[in-house]
Amino acid sequence: MVYDQNNVFAKILRGELPCHKVYETDRVLAFMDIMPRGDGHVLVVPKAPARNILDVEPDDLANLAKEVQVVAKGVKEAFKADGLTIQQFNESAGGQVVFHIHVHVIPRFEGVALKPHTGQMEDQEKLARSAEKIRAALGR
Amino acid sequence: MVYDQNNVFAKILRGELPCHKVYETDRVLAFMDIMPRGDGHVLVVPKAPARNILDVEPDDLANLAKEVQVVAKGVKEAFKADGLTIQQFNESAGGQVVFHIHVHVIPRFEGVALKPHTGQMEDQEKLARSAEKIRAALGR
Repeated sequence: MVYDQNNVFAKILRGELPCHKVYETDRVLAFMDIMPRGDGHVLVVPKAPARNILDVEPDDLANLAKEVQVVAKGVKEAFKADGLTIQQFNESAGGQVVFHIHVHVIPRFEGVALKPHTGQMEDQEKLARSAEKIRAALGR
Repeated sequence: MVYDQNNVFAKILRGELPCHKVYETDRVLAFMDIMPRGDGHVLVVPKAPARNILDVEPDDLANLAKEVQVVAKGVKEAFKADGLTIQQFNESAGGQVVFHIHVHVIPRFEGVALKPHTGQMEDQEKLARSAEKIRAALGR
């Protein structure tokens, strides 16, 4: 499987497409999922190109995991969540839609199910407000 | 939130409960999920005690991620899977049932949905055969 340099997240990483950024280091970028399964749904991606868990460099994956923890704590605090669901999909059969490795961080609340993946775009102002809340929790 | 030394995975790690082991290092253990969401569903846990992503040591989490990659490749090969779904649940609201951090590695196949989490125990001989297949793919 090859890495497509023109996938949506590669374009976001190159600044060719906008995103609601919540966190950034020299190795990772985190931003709001524009088709969230719940309020505060964030994606964390490594900057190094990789399609998914099958080809990502182990050190990039290890760093990604550490940063997912940082983001997860920030998301939980920002939304006063009761829990967090973390997901990472590989290939279409595994649920992957964009072919740059990414980790879903979804704040969860007692009695609230995940929304189905409808493909419907979230309101941009709502996403901007959520990103601001998470950046504040992360001290950014 | 505290770590309960008597959770089921702590007992498995201490050898007080059996498991269908597929992979082990000095820092992680991987074994078959006894209530699988699909054939070949494996759990990977760090040996160091941690409740979930909120309290796990960053280095343990980074090592866990690297080992999840190793196990994921083995599971995919063993089951000739088309993809993989990776999940990690935190607190009850996030889907967590056993309170020792664990990562779900589920092989996926085109057109086959995940089974619901029914709480029904899988046939032990089937789990044993699956574990053997994965160990062989991992060269163990």
